[in-house]
Amino acid sequence: MISVGLIGAGRIASVHARHLRGNNFARIVAVADPHAPNAAAIAGEHGARVAASAEEIIADPAIDAVIIASSTDTHCPLMLAAAKAGKRVYCEKPLASTLAEAYSTYVALGAAADAVMVGFNRRFDRNHAAVQADLAAGRLGKVQTVQITSRGPNTIPSLDYLKVSGGLFFDKMIHFFDMVRWLTGEEPVDVVAFGSVIADPVFAEANDIDTGMVTLRMKSGALCQIENTRRAVYGYDDRIEVLGTGGLIESSRITEGSVMRIIDDKILTEGLPKDPMVRMAPSYSASINAFIDFARSALGREAVPGVKDGLQAQIIAAAADRSLREGRIVKCAEILQSAGIAGEDGLA
Amino acid sequence: MISVGLIGAGRIASVHARHLRGNNFARIVAVADPHAPNAAAIAGEHGARVAASAEEIIADPAIDAVIIASSTDTHCPLMLAAAKAGKRVYCEKPLASTLAEAYSTYVALGAAADAVMVGFNRRFDRNHAAVQADLAAGRLGKVQTVQITSRGPNTIPSLDYLKVSGGLFFDKMIHFFDMVRWLTGEEPVDVVAFGSVIADPVFAEANDIDTGMVTLRMKSGALCQIENTRRAVYGYDDRIEVLGTGGLIESSRITEGSVMRIIDDKILTEGLPKDPMVRMAPSYSASINAFIDFARSALGREAVPGVKDGLQAQIIAAAADRSLREGRIVKCAEILQSAGIAGEDGLA
Amino acid sequence: MISVGLIGAGRIASVHARHLRGNNFARIVAVADPHAPNAAAIAGEHGARVAASAEEIIADPAIDAVIIASSTDTHCPLMLAAAKAGKRVYCEKPLASTLAEAYSTYVALGAAADAVMVGFNRRFDRNHAAVQADLAAGRLGKVQTVQITSRGPNTIPSLDYLKVSGGLFFDKMIHFFDMVRWLTGEEPVDVVAFGSVIADPVFAEANDIDTGMVTLRMKSGALCQIENTRRAVYGYDDRIEVLGTGGLIESSRITEGSVMRIIDDKILTEGLPKDPMVRMAPSYSASINAFIDFARSALGREAVPGVKDGLQAQIIAAAADRSLREGRIVKCAEILQSAGIAGEDGLA
Amino acid sequence: MISVGLIGAGRIASVHARHLRGNNFARIVAVADPHAPNAAAIAGEHGARVAASAEEIIADPAIDAVIIASSTDTHCPLMLAAAKAGKRVYCEKPLASTLAEAYSTYVALGAAADAVMVGFNRRFDRNHAAVQADLAAGRLGKVQTVQITSRGPNTIPSLDYLKVSGGLFFDKMIHFFDMVRWLTGEEPVDVVAFGSVIADPVFAEANDIDTGMVTLRMKSGALCQIENTRRAVYGYDDRIEVLGTGGLIESSRITEGSVMRIIDDKILTEGLPKDPMVRMAPSYSASINAFIDFARSALGREAVPGVKDGLQAQIIAAAADRSLREGRIVKCAEILQSAGIAGEDGLA
Repeated sequence: MISVGLIGAGRIASVHARHLRGNNFARIVAVADPHAPNAAAIAGEHGARVAASAEEIIADPAIDAVIIASSTDTHCPLMLAAAKAGKRVYCEKPLASTLAEAYSTYVALGAAADAVMVGFNRRFDRNHAAVQADLAAGRLGKVQTVQITSRGPNTIPSLDYLKVSGGLFFDKMIHFFDMVRWLTGEEPVDVVAFGSVIADPVFAEANDIDTGMVTLRMKSGALCQIENTRRAVYGYDDRIEVLGTGGLIESSRITEGSVMRIIDDKILTEGLPKDPMVRMAPSYSASINAFIDFARSALGREAVPGVKDGLQAQIIAAAADRSLREGRIVKCAEILQSAGIAGEDGLA
Repeated sequence: MISVGLIGAGRIASVHARHLRGNNFARIVAVADPHAPNAAAIAGEHGARVAASAEEIIADPAIDAVIIASSTDTHCPLMLAAAKAGKRVYCEKPLASTLAEAYSTYVALGAAADAVMVGFNRRFDRNHAAVQADLAAGRLGKVQTVQITSRGPNTIPSLDYLKVSGGLFFDKMIHFFDMVRWLTGEEPVDVVAFGSVIADPVFAEANDIDTGMVTLRMKSGALCQIENTRRAVYGYDDRIEVLGTGGLIESSRITEGSVMRIIDDKILTEGLPKDPMVRMAPSYSASINAFIDFARSALGREAVPGVKDGLQAQIIAAAADRSLREGRIVKCAEILQSAGIAGEDGLA
Repeated sequence: MISVGLIGAGRIASVHARHLRGNNFARIVAVADPHAPNAAAIAGEHGARVAASAEEIIADPAIDAVIIASSTDTHCPLMLAAAKAGKRVYCEKPLASTLAEAYSTYVALGAAADAVMVGFNRRFDRNHAAVQADLAAGRLGKVQTVQITSRGPNTIPSLDYLKVSGGLFFDKMIHFFDMVRWLTGEEPVDVVAFGSVIADPVFAEANDIDTGMVTLRMKSGALCQIENTRRAVYGYDDRIEVLGTGGLIESSRITEGSVMRIIDDKILTEGLPKDPMVRMAPSYSASINAFIDFARSALGREAVPGVKDGLQAQIIAAAADRSLREGRIVKCAEILQSAGIAGEDGLA
Repeated sequence: MISVGLIGAGRIASVHARHLRGNNFARIVAVADPHAPNAAAIAGEHGARVAASAEEIIADPAIDAVIIASSTDTHCPLMLAAAKAGKRVYCEKPLASTLAEAYSTYVALGAAADAVMVGFNRRFDRNHAAVQADLAAGRLGKVQTVQITSRGPNTIPSLDYLKVSGGLFFDKMIHFFDMVRWLTGEEPVDVVAFGSVIADPVFAEANDIDTGMVTLRMKSGALCQIENTRRAVYGYDDRIEVLGTGGLIESSRITEGSVMRIIDDKILTEGLPKDPMVRMAPSYSASINAFIDFARSALGREAVPGVKDGLQAQIIAAAADRSLREGRIVKCAEILQSAGIAGEDGLA
């Protein structure tokens, strides 16, 4: 039985707590959050204690594994402390608020990085994972193109949320930057990003965009497109389409049910979930289960996706960000160089 | 170049004429119809002459092939005369107004029956034919069940039409009685029919039904259901579904196009054609092309579907009709016996 | 918190126990089964005690609600005792091994019948329920036809199971007999059944069929077809299609996922679940939740579906059974008359 | 009856000739091609005469309309001569081999440009046109994103063809550059293109690419992605997807038929046509019919799509070409300026 300490008690922390409850091999024993009532609520629901601080959780020898679901600026110090303290760590994305901090933490972790799994939950979506498995097994031949489309939900985030979110590239699209690497098994060379505010002026107020398109050329020449919109009136739509020289594979739209009507001149089938959690819950649950499996495994195994994956995704996000700001195609190599990373560890 | 004489100038005759025009190996040379203006219209459109009578067409040595699309009561004498005169004959369904006449014509034709193709156009629908091909090749194993659903169109026929149509079983469902034999490669043993008037009271006025369900048990034990409605508000829907011990095969719904919208909580795709001819035209065209191929072939080949197929379908229609009138399961053997057919020619 | 006693510890009992665990308002407190180790296993898993007998559970004043998931022959006496003892009762289908027993229990229950919910779980399938809701609200106009197709799974039941199952009509198709009533809101007048053994000879050995087709004419003239096969090589397929004068509604196939491939000349999407429980679990879960809601409600509410629904479905099953054995269309009124039920309680 | 002169007798010319045959208001009277046997073949098939030259056709007062389907370098002089001679003109895309020639021809045409329709056949695809109609009517709100995907066929073009094709952007993607303008009703501001050779090295030999991705930012901020591959092993796939603030609309994949099989754990439906003409024929036919309608209309109407549309698409193709060669985002304004077009005629 893995004893889990939960750091953070916000929305995603409560999602993880709920999914942990369905895992027979783990239980939450302590919850820490600067806002104590939130910690108390989750602790109460799951029969855990409220810890005085994240540090208390990390110091507790009875705790085997730590889930870091606190604000982004705390990820790096907590991950470093927890991993050095011998915990298995599940850390929410993104790794850090800045690429510099992400990289220095990666360096500071050294071998301890193996203990840290990064919360790229989409890798655990059964449909997305089937696409990756086909590609990894070479069943589609050489990859020609990848199209990733992720839209929604149908609500507008608050200005307060947007201001601290890190922006579309770091907050959301980082999942898809990770996915292009995971799907193709290679790194991007060139990145170009376009962004607009169309759905709602609040995004402009937050100095963010609501509609982003990023194109990447991978080392092999495979071309990848990512469309990511913060809002789609019709719901939450998260898809992958890969064209290979051997055929096509898609992780297609997921709808709410299987009722079909034919009225007048239209066939009406059920639409997409409005709530992102309806679409994403299975992948969150699977990622938490994978983390518990990892926590139960012998030392020496490397967490996947790991810190290096988180760092690589952040490099691409930084390239997209620079592309958008400077209105030009950006090479990932530039980002590495600016950050003093180039050449090390085979990165990018 | 096959010279074709067209007997009849109604709706289906004009459909056949139009499809003949697309065949490079045939042309209509003469059209006969008791209502001369109709004949003149079709003749004019296709550069043919108006014949004084069906008999004139049959007697014309320059005519190679005859299409009989006149009223049902004329089918038998015309088919007999034309086949005996050495023409290749395409005869619309059903063979005759009565089973007795159909059978006596079949007997009278003797070997000349080989020259007569019956207008079961659905055998030439590419999707339906793919189902049959899989079954004939044994790719689905043993047939467990067959479901045939045919609905529509979304208009109500006139009382005048209904009064002379022969009724749902002989006018429409005869196609599906032919199809169960064609698909399974065997004859039905038991037939039971239910019928109702739900869509419109005009069907009751015509002493007909608008909604029919017929179940058949085939020799092998395979069970077949036919749902046939004269009206479906949403359009023309014509499908087959076969469950075999090796899998399932369907000839699925055909829609009007490939536009898809997602609005609010519904995915809206295009509906079904309202006009039966939009759904059925390709199979009519293919059946006429198959007839011209047959007309161009050396003597000795047997037309498929032929007179015997028309007769067998009519036997099943008679069984369904008796089942509905008498409220009981009817054996095809009973029908054969009543009609003095039993035991002959391996029928049923 | 509703304290539940579970009578029976077989496969469906363990399914119910698992679903109860997900309900925050109920807990299993006792489990009884003639085979003690089965009871102990379920009791152990859910922190309940093993009861000495069903009677002990029924006599326990601390138990609010009883789930009867024991063998069919025990349903009637247990349901009667439990309801008379003031428990809320969830009873598995069918009500009884014989129609006579079902009817006498219904009569003996009197007003206590209101406390008994019958386990027609498909009424709680969200997609099937959407069909029913549209029909009940009149959104499809008058019902013309209903097609219910239920196939699978892809395994063959054991001879031992088949011998005690009650046969296809009473064991499985009883769900669909209930559904035609529920969907159309009316009773059948005429019933005709065909059955065959095609998938495997074990069904003949058990004096059962593996492939059944039943057609029903409802009071309004609406026609209903049920295809029910015990085995479909491709998995578990459970669908409804209703044609009304206002349009069509379907509860369509449910597939295992949303991965799509295009290889060569085929589009390949995911197939159907092989395990019936994958297809049916949500409806079982929803039916148990509905039962707990009912158990928590004030007295005076009538359980739906109730004993009368169970009885009506059993009357139709008896009609189908007689139809198959006697090779004729059977009127439900005949069954009522033979069982001495006719005229009472507005049945059928 | 419109008398049509056909200039060019290659593949696309024969396609147009065939579609003209199905139009009751037009006939081909003359065919000209430098390679006389080709002209003779088409002329023979359609009962037309072989003209000595394109000039002879243009000079013939009995000819009402001219279809220019000759090599790209001849488009401009022929279009100019024919329009000035008072003919209605259908000219294949692209307008010219160079943007300079396209622009000077546009200027030289002046008001005569109204007589020239450009062969952007996809505007006449019924499904694509339904998307445009929804957008033009504002039914989708503001456009957020447009995704155009066009892939295939499954064959590799010859090196000889590729060398004279003008390259992916001018030969194929020009259709989609036209479509983004047509769909959004606005011009692009920024264009960025990525291209790779992945499917076959012959494309590198021809100094072309087989896989292209172009992203465009429109004036309103709407973002458009175009994926265009010269080869897709699975067939010819041509789709549009538009996300608006009011919903989503797609012109979805078109498959070869409606046969569906469920075998083992897969649902197999029919794939995509391998022959581009199977996919595209209806839009070619509709575009020719639209041209004949235009030719029959009174003077003063402007052909749509017209020369200006052809020019605008060519400007975007030039921007994409420069983007790919120079590895940077290109503004359409730059292209206008280089070509001495900027500011004139409201272009771009």
